[in-house]
Amino acid sequence: MLRDGVKEELKKIAGETNVSFSKEDLICYSYDATNSPYPPDAVVFPRSSAEVSSILKLANSERFPVIPRGAGTGASGGSLPVEGGVVLSTERMNAIIGIDADNLTAVVEPGVVTWEFQQEAEKFGLFYPPDPSSLKFSTIGGNIAECAGGPRAVKYGVTRDYVLGLEVVLPTGEIVDTGVVTAKGVVGYDLTRLMVGSEGTLGVVTKAVLRLVPMPEYSVTVQAVFPSLRDAASAVAGVIKAMIIPSTLEIVDSVSTRCVEEYVRIGLPKDGAFLLMEADGTKAAALGEMERMKRICLDNGASRMDEAVDKKAVKDLWKARRAISASLYRIRPGKINEDVVVPRSRIVELITGIETIARKRGLLIACFGHAGDGNVHVNVMYDGKDEREAAEAKTAVTDVFELVLKLGGTLSGEHGVGITKAPYLGMELGQPLIDAMKSIKKALDPNGILNPGKIFPRSHAG
Amino acid sequence: MLRDGVKEELKKIAGETNVSFSKEDLICYSYDATNSPYPPDAVVFPRSSAEVSSILKLANSERFPVIPRGAGTGASGGSLPVEGGVVLSTERMNAIIGIDADNLTAVVEPGVVTWEFQQEAEKFGLFYPPDPSSLKFSTIGGNIAECAGGPRAVKYGVTRDYVLGLEVVLPTGEIVDTGVVTAKGVVGYDLTRLMVGSEGTLGVVTKAVLRLVPMPEYSVTVQAVFPSLRDAASAVAGVIKAMIIPSTLEIVDSVSTRCVEEYVRIGLPKDGAFLLMEADGTKAAALGEMERMKRICLDNGASRMDEAVDKKAVKDLWKARRAISASLYRIRPGKINEDVVVPRSRIVELITGIETIARKRGLLIACFGHAGDGNVHVNVMYDGKDEREAAEAKTAVTDVFELVLKLGGTLSGEHGVGITKAPYLGMELGQPLIDAMKSIKKALDPNGILNPGKIFPRSHAG
Repeated sequence: MLRDGVKEELKKIAGETNVSFSKEDLICYSYDATNSPYPPDAVVFPRSSAEVSSILKLANSERFPVIPRGAGTGASGGSLPVEGGVVLSTERMNAIIGIDADNLTAVVEPGVVTWEFQQEAEKFGLFYPPDPSSLKFSTIGGNIAECAGGPRAVKYGVTRDYVLGLEVVLPTGEIVDTGVVTAKGVVGYDLTRLMVGSEGTLGVVTKAVLRLVPMPEYSVTVQAVFPSLRDAASAVAGVIKAMIIPSTLEIVDSVSTRCVEEYVRIGLPKDGAFLLMEADGTKAAALGEMERMKRICLDNGASRMDEAVDKKAVKDLWKARRAISASLYRIRPGKINEDVVVPRSRIVELITGIETIARKRGLLIACFGHAGDGNVHVNVMYDGKDEREAAEAKTAVTDVFELVLKLGGTLSGEHGVGITKAPYLGMELGQPLIDAMKSIKKALDPNGILNPGKIFPRSHAG
Repeated sequence: MLRDGVKEELKKIAGETNVSFSKEDLICYSYDATNSPYPPDAVVFPRSSAEVSSILKLANSERFPVIPRGAGTGASGGSLPVEGGVVLSTERMNAIIGIDADNLTAVVEPGVVTWEFQQEAEKFGLFYPPDPSSLKFSTIGGNIAECAGGPRAVKYGVTRDYVLGLEVVLPTGEIVDTGVVTAKGVVGYDLTRLMVGSEGTLGVVTKAVLRLVPMPEYSVTVQAVFPSLRDAASAVAGVIKAMIIPSTLEIVDSVSTRCVEEYVRIGLPKDGAFLLMEADGTKAAALGEMERMKRICLDNGASRMDEAVDKKAVKDLWKARRAISASLYRIRPGKINEDVVVPRSRIVELITGIETIARKRGLLIACFGHAGDGNVHVNVMYDGKDEREAAEAKTAVTDVFELVLKLGGTLSGEHGVGITKAPYLGMELGQPLIDAMKSIKKALDPNGILNPGKIFPRSHAG
């Protein structure tokens, strides 16, 4: 609980209307997409880096946790106040400060919604590729904290690849400018990339210099339906062998296909699977690449191919892909969503291995995701009211992680560790590496006030 | 000086034939491209991460500096033993461990020469883009330490963008695996990118997992000659406005053009300037892009355009570009080479500003480099025997740095800080940021044994 004096101090820093202690707000800001609430003691909405600095300095002198938060769409609990304290919402720092078309850069505040920024960039003929599924709600600041990816990452990379520099308030309250506003820069340690993906534990991003690319001239979207997952996976292997790097190559397994078909009714086969493919570039290059991919799909038994003829058709094709996550709740009310990655040549082994785990544990597990870069969303479905199922679901997650690591993979491609994967951190990282990371945390946040209880397993907390 | 016991210990760790204390070797390993020798007390050539670990552990208990070194081609003194100690050469750890064409990755030891790795990747139809001018000698380990770039960075990015994971021996001797072997990964802090560009001060890279891309189908090279630098620069601005991202866009000023012409005799105009442009991709896309660039060059007064018709012709065109650096010594025996970066739209302001500085200081300054990403190599020419010129040259460097920062730029795009730019660090970075970097250094290297005396200005050394 915060002392009354601290509450007054927060009001002084941010202004009366930019701090809340109301029960309603505390409930609202206790959630993210993991659906495990931890209420904070206060929510503050700073409007400048100076205010963020003052809040963090106060937190150091009064020793309360500060938890940075974008839109709260995170999938690993990164923005949850697990030890109480003050949620620092960036939603009132949401200006697009400038877009520089000549230098292919933009400067934005952290609270800008990713989709809105993309729309603005498009007006200049520019493209900001990162496209997490939350992009219509999630913020640039949150995307930076988690190093968000998305379907386009296979060709365009992830958030890390588009951050040139940052204004960051360090946990001690110091305001620093990391990186550059230029295309290149190697002066000093790369604190920019250290901040990206650090899940709000090393600093609060208050401004970001982002890299943009010219909008591709043309893009073509095709959905290829296959009688079985194995056929779809062979087609993916074929695309890989042909050294094609499409702008999107999504795979959807049978469980997901069935669910989404029951949900959106677009005539997908009950036991089939599908690929959603996009190619972009010059018109000729994009169409040529797509022709090659379609040929590979046909050679691997595609039973149907839907090519989008206009923007509406593209949207319709994405509708099925985007609806999967929601449609899965038709199977079971509970879902554990893990975003594992394996070397992309091993996706078939991953998915068939997961089928075995599902059978063994008596569960339904739905897999879909970014086949082009080996990043698969594994959704373990269960009913929380059924104790056996809930326990089996937890065990299944460990099984999946063991399989992923055996295949040379990683436990998270885009969601981060947060609290949900913290207990498993030691499965992937050796203790000396964890210790090195913790020493960096300690160096930058000696009092441990910024987003405590995240990433590192509780038993090892220092 | 090292104790005899330490010398014996080093022999025990690496083997008699992998340690040298001979005067000849100490002289050889006291140099890099900055031409300011600092002899070490020993040179050791470990062959495994275990040996590297033992050397670093010994260094901690005996408190001697260890200086990692690739091929010693660095341009900022990163591999110089400025405080004596043991040079740790990676040249006997030079295996290409594997290339995985399906997953577009490779695993290499740090001593692999970049060019040799590229040749090996090409056999698989794969492409490793970073191309520092030293690429035929410099090593992957050195390239990672400095985050090397090159002409292709404008389209393909720098070394940082191709490192997925590392085996690193931390300064304390702990061996850790950072990052992933997959396309994506966000588990824990991004120590991979923290290591890239840390100039051998935070760890010794003993293995690297690199990302590869499919070799582009086609590439076209054109040299466009202009009557003046201003015309060449207008053409660059035109390419930028047209949102073309070529695979190379090099600009060469009048001083450099004159020098290189006297050196290679290919008929370049005495007061002119030239652009070297490459486009790649599908054949149609590359040729289309180059046509657009040629049109822009003609519209901006290009007096001549040489298009390479075969591999030999490409090599010939690059010959002039690659010969600039050496040819400059025709003007003066001394050269200070700074690799500043400005937002690419401000290159004309940079180069004309530098002309003013040259006139003011009574010096010749040659500028050439990567116009596409704003990274210009500024070569301040002087005669070391002429005291006035040497002093003016030093002052001119400060003038250039002030101009660069005024234009929103950075002091180094590829060379790093090392010792040559350390005194200027505070011009670009604020003290709180420098302090944060030093706290990370201290956290990972509490005894300060790894590559001391680099990056941070001496007066601030903690």
